[in-house]
Amino acid sequence: MSLPPLFLLLLFLLLGAGGLRAAEPGAAAAAAGGGGSSSAMEELATEQEAEESHRQDSVSLLTFILLLTLTILTIWLFKHRRVRFLHETGLAMIYGLIVGVILRYGTPSTSGHDKPFSCSQEDRPFTTLLVNVSGKFFEYTLKGEISPGKIHNVEQNDMLRKVTFDPEVFFNILLPPIIFHAGYSLKKRHFFRNLGSILAYAFLGTAVSCFIIGNLMYGVVKLMKLVGQLSGKFYYTDCLLFGAIISATDPVTVLAIFNELHADVDLYALLFGESVLNDAVAIVLSSSIVAYQPTGENTHAFDAAAFFKSVGVFLGIFSGSFMMGAVTGVVTALVTKFTKLHCFPLLETALFFLMSWSTFLLAEACGFTGVVAVLFCGITQAHYTYNNLSVESRSRTKQLFEVLHFLAENFIFSYMGLALFTFQKHIFSPVFIIGAFVAIFLGRAAHIYPLSFLLNLGRRHKISWNFQHMMMFSGLRGAMAFALAIRDTATYSHQMMFSTTLLIVFFTVWIVGGGTTPMLSWLNIRVGDRVPSVEEMSESRWLYFRVGVDPDQDPPPTNDSFQVLQGDGPDSERRNRTKQESAWLFRLWYSFDHNYLKPILTHSGPPLTTTLPSWCGLIARCLTSPQVYDNQEQLREEDSDFILNDGDLTVTYGDTTITANGSSGPHTATTSLDGRRTKSNSEEALERDLGAADHEVTSRGTRLVFPLEDNA
Amino acid sequence: MSLPPLFLLLLFLLLGAGGLRAAEPGAAAAAAGGGGSSSAMEELATEQEAEESHRQDSVSLLTFILLLTLTILTIWLFKHRRVRFLHETGLAMIYGLIVGVILRYGTPSTSGHDKPFSCSQEDRPFTTLLVNVSGKFFEYTLKGEISPGKIHNVEQNDMLRKVTFDPEVFFNILLPPIIFHAGYSLKKRHFFRNLGSILAYAFLGTAVSCFIIGNLMYGVVKLMKLVGQLSGKFYYTDCLLFGAIISATDPVTVLAIFNELHADVDLYALLFGESVLNDAVAIVLSSSIVAYQPTGENTHAFDAAAFFKSVGVFLGIFSGSFMMGAVTGVVTALVTKFTKLHCFPLLETALFFLMSWSTFLLAEACGFTGVVAVLFCGITQAHYTYNNLSVESRSRTKQLFEVLHFLAENFIFSYMGLALFTFQKHIFSPVFIIGAFVAIFLGRAAHIYPLSFLLNLGRRHKISWNFQHMMMFSGLRGAMAFALAIRDTATYSHQMMFSTTLLIVFFTVWIVGGGTTPMLSWLNIRVGDRVPSVEEMSESRWLYFRVGVDPDQDPPPTNDSFQVLQGDGPDSERRNRTKQESAWLFRLWYSFDHNYLKPILTHSGPPLTTTLPSWCGLIARCLTSPQVYDNQEQLREEDSDFILNDGDLTVTYGDTTITANGSSGPHTATTSLDGRRTKSNSEEALERDLGAADHEVTSRGTRLVFPLEDNA
Repeated sequence: MSLPPLFLLLLFLLLGAGGLRAAEPGAAAAAAGGGGSSSAMEELATEQEAEESHRQDSVSLLTFILLLTLTILTIWLFKHRRVRFLHETGLAMIYGLIVGVILRYGTPSTSGHDKPFSCSQEDRPFTTLLVNVSGKFFEYTLKGEISPGKIHNVEQNDMLRKVTFDPEVFFNILLPPIIFHAGYSLKKRHFFRNLGSILAYAFLGTAVSCFIIGNLMYGVVKLMKLVGQLSGKFYYTDCLLFGAIISATDPVTVLAIFNELHADVDLYALLFGESVLNDAVAIVLSSSIVAYQPTGENTHAFDAAAFFKSVGVFLGIFSGSFMMGAVTGVVTALVTKFTKLHCFPLLETALFFLMSWSTFLLAEACGFTGVVAVLFCGITQAHYTYNNLSVESRSRTKQLFEVLHFLAENFIFSYMGLALFTFQKHIFSPVFIIGAFVAIFLGRAAHIYPLSFLLNLGRRHKISWNFQHMMMFSGLRGAMAFALAIRDTATYSHQMMFSTTLLIVFFTVWIVGGGTTPMLSWLNIRVGDRVPSVEEMSESRWLYFRVGVDPDQDPPPTNDSFQVLQGDGPDSERRNRTKQESAWLFRLWYSFDHNYLKPILTHSGPPLTTTLPSWCGLIARCLTSPQVYDNQEQLREEDSDFILNDGDLTVTYGDTTITANGSSGPHTATTSLDGRRTKSNSEEALERDLGAADHEVTSRGTRLVFPLEDNA
Repeated sequence: MSLPPLFLLLLFLLLGAGGLRAAEPGAAAAAAGGGGSSSAMEELATEQEAEESHRQDSVSLLTFILLLTLTILTIWLFKHRRVRFLHETGLAMIYGLIVGVILRYGTPSTSGHDKPFSCSQEDRPFTTLLVNVSGKFFEYTLKGEISPGKIHNVEQNDMLRKVTFDPEVFFNILLPPIIFHAGYSLKKRHFFRNLGSILAYAFLGTAVSCFIIGNLMYGVVKLMKLVGQLSGKFYYTDCLLFGAIISATDPVTVLAIFNELHADVDLYALLFGESVLNDAVAIVLSSSIVAYQPTGENTHAFDAAAFFKSVGVFLGIFSGSFMMGAVTGVVTALVTKFTKLHCFPLLETALFFLMSWSTFLLAEACGFTGVVAVLFCGITQAHYTYNNLSVESRSRTKQLFEVLHFLAENFIFSYMGLALFTFQKHIFSPVFIIGAFVAIFLGRAAHIYPLSFLLNLGRRHKISWNFQHMMMFSGLRGAMAFALAIRDTATYSHQMMFSTTLLIVFFTVWIVGGGTTPMLSWLNIRVGDRVPSVEEMSESRWLYFRVGVDPDQDPPPTNDSFQVLQGDGPDSERRNRTKQESAWLFRLWYSFDHNYLKPILTHSGPPLTTTLPSWCGLIARCLTSPQVYDNQEQLREEDSDFILNDGDLTVTYGDTTITANGSSGPHTATTSLDGRRTKSNSEEALERDLGAADHEVTSRGTRLVFPLEDNA
């Protein structure tokens, strides 16, 4: 049995779902109309109508589920046949488009689908219901009896409405798992190595892009007003909002394609890190622009006070959300560390899930941005909590969020396809659309190239031109831009922005997503532009991948032959490079994290008894788990993030008296040969983690640790 | 760090979540009130109000999440300390109760929380919103400005309302994962061995219980009317509906406790199977009772036509839902068999999840019962699809549904606790409540004892008195009864039924759930009442369990020494027993399943080329996957359900020419010694699967297969 029959079956079901609905309401309406006037009959009729409405909801949801099923099967087919000209998200959009066309045009055309929903305000009992939907109270007014001739009109109208979801669904249900997964699966090694550049691209870049796009679009709007193409109000703040919405690049497609092609890891880290943080910045930026509300008469002119208020809002929301996410992550880490929950993986997974979700709700409840909080919660969970989980829970949580992420993402993309035809208030303005395309191109160019130039001044291994071109090209817009745009479609300007955003997402996902592979080879990125032996490297990554080892954990030895490395000895050279790359702030944080946070929050790192001053001995002994002494050896293998050669640390604290439990064992004793407590143990670890994972494993136990001269 | 601080922290957060809410709305109201009359300001105010409402939703959801987190931590503590007097679901209810009390009485008392929600009907723009929630259109009327003095009253009122979920949430979101998981994790071996009894208990038993409870309650209602305790209408159909609602016993608690204690597997199968099917029967029964609508004047008297219509509805809905579930399961099995989806476990898991969910929606869309369809879908998925999944997907799907089930279940139970205080239309009638307790006791007694008596007439190994007492005792009411009762709380009678159901659930979960362990030991069930060496057996089950082997797959050898087995030879005796136990209908189905369905839908079972008549050769060759020939050996180990000694089957079809691919290999050749095609291969397999798994493994390859004389 080949695939086509299955596809036909699914398509048939999809169409059938639409057809089914048309047949039912007549009966319900007749039942409602034919009943007597007794209250019991009316109750029954109301019940039937409610049931009918429930059935229609099921059908519309079923449509999406079948759409997703179809998408999954096609994705499999594409992966199976190694088709790369179209990414799976692009596919989901195409299916969505097809179903949207069917829903819109496949049934008799509708009259008046643009008029607002008019509810009957008669005082019949049971026609006006109070419905409590997830805590909100809504007045649910049932429409009166529908005359048989009108059913099709009304129903068609209804169907389009039914497949239109509340925008908040995207923000509160679909985005959180996607963003959490992004944070949870962030490749920490390369991410931290390029942290400075990533932060620069994400914060400065997004702000630059937002303002450039906003100003360009304001010019376009002015032009449209001159030409007479604008039939509604379009303020400067709207233009800036559009800039914020459209500046959020999507990590999804880049991630998928780069992962599949095993492209350069640094480029991957830059792009992925930028687009993940990008999203957070764009959300908060758009919130601050909405909050920008000048006082006085002219409410849409520039007002310095309001501007600084907006900047304050931006900083407040961002840092608040960041804190919220970090705090929940830390609490989860503490709970999983100090309870023996890991004996019950189900409980552990459930707790992990709930705590991560509560970050979102907590942030929303405090007026911060849940999605941003969830991102940082994901990063914290991956950094600390993950180490405390049982082996089963690790795979469980990863898989759980992977599935949620996959489903949510494909749902959003197929919904986008659907929305092009089913959304009822589209305003397509050719001038605005062309202007927007030009603006996003210029906006991206205006932050990638200058920023790269500035960053290259400070970077030891430069971001090459080809990388810059690739970053320029990879500015895909996806789920986040869509969710931000659909959030408010009440006014003329917002509707136009939404329609334009939709088109930009389509274009970038199809063209850019499909063109990534040719572009990579055209720019010679895969054949060793900067990194000489990428071919070999991706081969070895592939091998690592196949044997189940995260390529991020153990970079291949070829990394060593970086073209910039031409010093006297590899060791000192590496040290210098590491120094120059990581800013002092980052080094400070790293040392704090390594010496205090890791030991407090997880079972790894050096015991607090060695890192804290001696007068904190009691607290240190309380907070250090016995496993730190026991499992030092074991954890070296398990610890997934960038503390790689943790075992070496036994050298540095081997001389201090370990009193908590005596089981530091013979292994520690044999390796603590040098017997000196060095002050720079965290710097050593940082250095090893960031650049020097290419030591031969055999040299591990015998290498002596020299304190660094420079303690900055 | 010990647990109590964590608990305090969580409790603090819980209370804080309530307090936080009180602080916020004032600002928002002030902002709304202080604005000018420009449309922009009004828009802003509306936006802020919407944001405020969203924030409150977050808080109420957060309350539940923190409640669940607290529950999980306490469960861990209980498991850790081996506390058994209170089951985790009982615990969830207690926490729910506490929070409910806090919400209800912890804040200033509310005036008029019983009056209906009055919405302001001014024609201000943006105060009346049309909100589309998951496809339904609701008119969302924002309340006007709230004067600062009234905020507390209104808010308190709101909070209680906000923690009250739409009843449909239970049916459409929380129950499906619970029921699916029950079906998916059904212990097939013992389930099928006791299928007849289980079906009898579930169908006949539930019907008997429903009618007895209904009639008893009608008597109670009559009595209440005489005494003057009844202040509303209470019809006979309402009483029957109550009977249906309260007849659904809960599989959850029984499952958990029996699993932990490793009690007798047959008793476990009886109880679990009964309560799972019970739920399905109760749902459909209550739907049919609601559908019972006599024509004519007296709408609540008995009407034969309407009665038979109801019976028809029952049969129609039940068989329709059954079919729906089975069909989706079969489609999923076919898709997973004929695509190579197992190379991509993520896609496979997502597909599995979506297809299982679509069963629910499909059934709802067609007017059947989604929950029932999901149950049978789960059974089908476990029986067929599970075998086609990759090893990773098997654990993924199991874990995914386990987590969903766990969260949904604990949510429902803590919501129950909460509802006792936050539900605003409780009607507690002592007479009705006492009557209900007596009625459920009598109702359960009236079906367990007579049915067991009748079943024992036909059963070879009887259901002993102690087992009957235990089944009588284990009639817990849980999530399903609650969900059925909360579904419709519009009328006086339904409200009284809901309040009573809530109390019954509390009582049974706390008392019966906590009393299971003492009851089991008091009834001597664990120390070998029927099965002589249960002690030993549960020991060995425990061992199997610890080493990761499903105890269901390989029953311990002690099973052999059943007291009823005192024949001449164990082999013939076993055969007889198997025969007598499994009805001819079941045998027929089994043989059909083994010879046709399994080979068509999975990679296991005998190749269709051997089981189908020769004129279907082409179809048979198309449908039989090459793996059947290849993996026969391998699958023997992997196949998780009751086909245990599949490898033996090579003996019975070893002589037929296998043309599809020649790799039947040397193993087949060596075992096909007898060279005769026996007609009774499925009977052999059935027999082996049902009772005779206690063969020594060493005898497998050499045992000759004798065709049975009796082919009935």
